[in-house]
Amino acid sequence: MKTEFELIEKYFNKKSMKAHKGIGDDAALFERDKDNYWAISTDMLNEKIHFLPNTNPYKLGWKAMAVNVSDILSMGASPMFALLSIALPKSNSEWLKKFSQGFFACCKLYNAELIGGDTTKGPLSINVTVLGSVNKKNVLLRSGAKIGDDIWVTGELGLAALGLKIAKKNITAPSTLSKKSMDALEKPVPDMIAIKKIHSFCNAGIDVSDGFIADLNHILNASKVGAKVFLDDLPINNWLRKNKKVDLALYGGDDYQTILTASKKMRSTIEKLIKKNKLDISRVGFVTRDKKLVMDDHDKEIKLKKGYEHFENK
Amino acid sequence: MKTEFELIEKYFNKKSMKAHKGIGDDAALFERDKDNYWAISTDMLNEKIHFLPNTNPYKLGWKAMAVNVSDILSMGASPMFALLSIALPKSNSEWLKKFSQGFFACCKLYNAELIGGDTTKGPLSINVTVLGSVNKKNVLLRSGAKIGDDIWVTGELGLAALGLKIAKKNITAPSTLSKKSMDALEKPVPDMIAIKKIHSFCNAGIDVSDGFIADLNHILNASKVGAKVFLDDLPINNWLRKNKKVDLALYGGDDYQTILTASKKMRSTIEKLIKKNKLDISRVGFVTRDKKLVMDDHDKEIKLKKGYEHFENK
Repeated sequence: MKTEFELIEKYFNKKSMKAHKGIGDDAALFERDKDNYWAISTDMLNEKIHFLPNTNPYKLGWKAMAVNVSDILSMGASPMFALLSIALPKSNSEWLKKFSQGFFACCKLYNAELIGGDTTKGPLSINVTVLGSVNKKNVLLRSGAKIGDDIWVTGELGLAALGLKIAKKNITAPSTLSKKSMDALEKPVPDMIAIKKIHSFCNAGIDVSDGFIADLNHILNASKVGAKVFLDDLPINNWLRKNKKVDLALYGGDDYQTILTASKKMRSTIEKLIKKNKLDISRVGFVTRDKKLVMDDHDKEIKLKKGYEHFENK
Repeated sequence: MKTEFELIEKYFNKKSMKAHKGIGDDAALFERDKDNYWAISTDMLNEKIHFLPNTNPYKLGWKAMAVNVSDILSMGASPMFALLSIALPKSNSEWLKKFSQGFFACCKLYNAELIGGDTTKGPLSINVTVLGSVNKKNVLLRSGAKIGDDIWVTGELGLAALGLKIAKKNITAPSTLSKKSMDALEKPVPDMIAIKKIHSFCNAGIDVSDGFIADLNHILNASKVGAKVFLDDLPINNWLRKNKKVDLALYGGDDYQTILTASKKMRSTIEKLIKKNKLDISRVGFVTRDKKLVMDDHDKEIKLKKGYEHFENK
């Protein structure tokens, strides 16, 4: 039985002749003008798969936009336009009102405008397409990582996965962390300011939607390189570390943080920008020639699952 | 209780500052270069709402692309890129293979390339976004109709609605017509050649997705004009006329033909193009100052339902 990934590769991944970059990255790229590309990304969210039934419609509207913004930002691009399709089981004015408020609040934060869409009947499903613009010099592809690059990641990892466990009543966490995790799950806020401050110094980028390990592997595969990551340096909440829930940060999805790689020569520049602007960005490892992902835990290499296996299977 | 249309108007129809044309037409338009706009459209198709369960996946793949192509063509634009999101209840290699074949066959006919997408689990749902390019001089908006314009329509009306009745076993039609109607329903073929030959001589355009009367009304409302349409001149199959099923052509949806309006001065040019290229385009009426839609049936005005009422309610 082929995986979904393999089916897509097999049936849909045709090379584009007219676009600069077609299927296979966080967004496709096509010519805007001499200096810029358009970046375009689309994501579908379905009830029970991507969000729990009875999710607050304001937060759902926000998240539907935010997950696409995350893709656009991770290409080094800035969001500009959005298109929104919604299928609703029945017309529901109050629900649509709150959904639209959340959606537009997110659009506003990221300077994007809704310019088109479709509404229809059907099981609750939301599809958003976001268009952004990126200077050709600043494009961040998954395939851009170079041997020796530092690996950087925004924000904290594993909060959304913890939030999902809390929502499903599988874990109880302290109330402040619990609140923060539920917010991360339901109303992710991709860190545009942090990414924009440093993206022009970076070589590769991807957003963390499938989990840190899986998404880092996407970069490593596309760039034909490996990586060494230091467990202690990963931005993981202390409560997760103390309670042996580090796996949520490594393999949990839905973080909508961004992994970036940048030449070691850029390290001091990036560190100065982080300090000056109080950016929430961590340096967590480096890119290696050896095509494998090694996690260093106090000089003890630890076994990686899921993402690691996926990488090995390539 | 507000209609879906009113809810969209109320909650989502915000004016775009950065796009040339936002929500409210078949596609949104934004700057491509000095001479051209990008046109972008998105449509969601859901099982049981837009297609019957067990619809042939090849035809479904075709239709998902074709309904968006129809929007792009009706703006006077040419399709270039597509993004595809699919939710499937379970991974199904054979289904995806056939779906992709239909989708790409349609892409090929209209010179469009798939550059991005998303696949996920969920009740069967398909969302396609299509980008096209249009010369600024050739843009066809719903609001472009001028008093005195001829009204033109491509192809035949009501076939898809007849096909749906046949599929649901509500009507039995002669076998040739039955086959043609099922094709119109399941594998619509927007007439790019016909539209492209004449669009530069036209003032307004819309594709027929909600039904001829409803969509003509969208033009009339947006252009703040009325129209007189001659029932005898509408491209309606004789079998429908003889069997008193003309309503299928007037109010049935899913035709994916195109309504165009053009100055009377362009009539002879358009007629010559139609003759020379054997185009399937009919002149069916004209645009009036009086803001109502009148259907002339041998000088006897006939009552219009649905579309007409919708128009009156504006």
